[in-house]
Amino acid sequence: MYGLITDLYQLTMAAGYFLAGKANEVATFELFLRRLPPERNYVIAAGLEQAVDYLLNLHFEPAQIDYLKHLSQFQRAPAEFFDYLARLRFTGDLDAVPEGTPVFPDEPILRVRAPLIEAQIVETYLLATIGFQSMVATKASRVVYAAAGRSVIEFGTRRAHSPQAGVLAGRAAYIGGCIGTSNVQAGFLYGVPVFGTAAHSWVLSFESEIESFRKLQELLGPSTVYLVDTYDTLQGTRRAASLGRPMWGVRLDSGNFVELSRMVRRILNEAGLHDARIMVSGDMNEYKILELVREEAPIDAFGVGTELATSADAPNLAVIYKLVELESDGRKRYTAKFSTEKETWPGAKQVFRYTGYDLLACVDEEPQRSPEGEEPEVLLQPVIRKGELVRRLPDVHQIREHALRALERLPRAYRSLFGVEPAYRVEPTPRLRSLRDQVRRQYLEGTP
Amino acid sequence: MYGLITDLYQLTMAAGYFLAGKANEVATFELFLRRLPPERNYVIAAGLEQAVDYLLNLHFEPAQIDYLKHLSQFQRAPAEFFDYLARLRFTGDLDAVPEGTPVFPDEPILRVRAPLIEAQIVETYLLATIGFQSMVATKASRVVYAAAGRSVIEFGTRRAHSPQAGVLAGRAAYIGGCIGTSNVQAGFLYGVPVFGTAAHSWVLSFESEIESFRKLQELLGPSTVYLVDTYDTLQGTRRAASLGRPMWGVRLDSGNFVELSRMVRRILNEAGLHDARIMVSGDMNEYKILELVREEAPIDAFGVGTELATSADAPNLAVIYKLVELESDGRKRYTAKFSTEKETWPGAKQVFRYTGYDLLACVDEEPQRSPEGEEPEVLLQPVIRKGELVRRLPDVHQIREHALRALERLPRAYRSLFGVEPAYRVEPTPRLRSLRDQVRRQYLEGTP
Repeated sequence: MYGLITDLYQLTMAAGYFLAGKANEVATFELFLRRLPPERNYVIAAGLEQAVDYLLNLHFEPAQIDYLKHLSQFQRAPAEFFDYLARLRFTGDLDAVPEGTPVFPDEPILRVRAPLIEAQIVETYLLATIGFQSMVATKASRVVYAAAGRSVIEFGTRRAHSPQAGVLAGRAAYIGGCIGTSNVQAGFLYGVPVFGTAAHSWVLSFESEIESFRKLQELLGPSTVYLVDTYDTLQGTRRAASLGRPMWGVRLDSGNFVELSRMVRRILNEAGLHDARIMVSGDMNEYKILELVREEAPIDAFGVGTELATSADAPNLAVIYKLVELESDGRKRYTAKFSTEKETWPGAKQVFRYTGYDLLACVDEEPQRSPEGEEPEVLLQPVIRKGELVRRLPDVHQIREHALRALERLPRAYRSLFGVEPAYRVEPTPRLRSLRDQVRRQYLEGTP
Repeated sequence: MYGLITDLYQLTMAAGYFLAGKANEVATFELFLRRLPPERNYVIAAGLEQAVDYLLNLHFEPAQIDYLKHLSQFQRAPAEFFDYLARLRFTGDLDAVPEGTPVFPDEPILRVRAPLIEAQIVETYLLATIGFQSMVATKASRVVYAAAGRSVIEFGTRRAHSPQAGVLAGRAAYIGGCIGTSNVQAGFLYGVPVFGTAAHSWVLSFESEIESFRKLQELLGPSTVYLVDTYDTLQGTRRAASLGRPMWGVRLDSGNFVELSRMVRRILNEAGLHDARIMVSGDMNEYKILELVREEAPIDAFGVGTELATSADAPNLAVIYKLVELESDGRKRYTAKFSTEKETWPGAKQVFRYTGYDLLACVDEEPQRSPEGEEPEVLLQPVIRKGELVRRLPDVHQIREHALRALERLPRAYRSLFGVEPAYRVEPTPRLRSLRDQVRRQYLEGTP
């Protein structure tokens, strides 16, 4: 069913390329950030696994092709185009930055090299998949940074933008450093650890709060988290404490958490439950957590929902997908945009990462040691060749480890919850610069 | 695959209800807005069709149940619970406000009456489905209002929160008044009209701009929309104009649209192409459109992407799902929350809409004529009874018509792009008020 999850113009252009005899030209497109979102100093690349699944399974069903045939935009398309579409599979190459890697504007996250039509059609899905998960993984890393060692769990499925968004948000949030999600499908499909015990409706469904707590403990034993604020938080905590062990702890979902968490801690301690933990949830975000941690509120875990799963302060990522090279009849043409504000780098590229800065290079440049003798990390790696997977993709646990390590390698200043100047340094190599100048000169000599 | 797209706590509570012998208690939950999003005076209900599809198809696969059995949270759950889950189908009732209807805080959008476990498990999916589409339909209605009769097309799939979000955003935007979407899957699945012709990469893939235009016209004829800003907007427009008819018109994707659209209009008119249209796109939103319309820029259509598909200024909706009644052994108990800020109305409810205001009533109240003799519209209608669909759901065209008519019926002030005081009036009936007072009294007399 993947075929039609794209913008119509990808398919009209496909028909046009076919009509213009350009079906076999080989295009290279790169997917990258035009700019960082507000108050962010990096973006964590995520969503590659779903992008690969899409590329390996892309095809058009007969019913989908019939649908296209009846659209006014395809009335002049040649019949052979629809046969072509019926046979279409992704036969090209994909190189990608590993999931969990921090990236910066202009650095390719994916590079697609394929027959022009294939490379064009996949644009929309790749942007949506990579853009959304990268946005959530980035947001999660901010929340986790704010929590300074306390656990963070993603709770936002109910406010995510569609059911699928909830599942993918759970995955991306884990990659970004959360310890897990409430989304069960994210656990089932991807192995993300899942958390959650009871809601207010659980408590309300019993005639008394203590009865609801007793039944919960019976079911969950040491995993029991009592939601204590349905009626009165302190009274609820006393009732929970009266049941003694086993329990994981209590959850507070409303109120002034600085004061409440201290009073709740005292009640638990007085009952000898020093090992019972306190979780808070309810409209949390990185800034509120920053304050709670600064105030040394005795909170062990944060449940973060809406603001995390929708990246509410920056709910979209400026990812773009641009044609950088086109080969036909053995001739290669480099393309770029030179209009104001939207200038891009021509040609297929690679990124070399040194401690504290990156080099943006032409794809065939060899990595060079830095003046200090450092070997760079080569960010883009082959993933698909001629339509076949050539790399074993890591699981979410490995991706999360990679992200945590890569973030630790970033200069600490860039972990800030606020935009930092100067931005992380991404420098073009001399060869890339000279390619750009050459392509720009051709462009200025005469608009094609 | 629907079963596990939910929060884990719904399933632990389900196991707990089972263990506590509450599986056959009958619960009524209502899904409603806690408050309006910023700068909105109404929300357009959308997503019912997908909610119904979910309720009619919800079940758990054996592999999903095996997954649950291995989670630490289910180690004490009785084996019979998993058998119960394997047989679980939605056997309850659903009442709902028709899609496309403007709704206000506290008014039920959906009412679910079902065995407690079923009604609990479905919460997460229903919130995500109704919340997201209602948010986008509402945003679309603002953009369409700003465009004051000019066409608006939804272009945001690439920035939507996941591929599925893009498809559903296309549907919801059409319901909210757009004339269509770029998302082909939304056309294929739901019949939403689809639009789109070519991107910058189309132009760049040819050696010259005029050649790319000629090929596009050959393919699209009267549907041709030339994207004229790849190199220079005015030169591009002259080249497009030189090809003459047939064409739909041109699209501008960058620059100062007030000035550019006038210059482009002049070029088209001088070429005798008075019927050629101008579309603009690129970071559009309702406020920019408001200004362009005020400036009388000669623009015929707007393509609105990122800000529409992500409702960027208000990227989530405060929809909640609350237990309002619980029946066991023939006894009915009413539930509500009375904590500060979060007070809710107990009991199953109905909404009666009069011209300019609504009454929130107990479910079994008869609609009354207003003092002016007006018969109210009864908003919640039966959709599912005992797990079976009992109403033919309207198609997206009928829903869109309903939304346009319903918005026209609202006092004009509430169409404003800014929050208006006083808010649209939603008044409880005397019976509902007295039920609330009675439940609150019981609550204050002694926390359960």
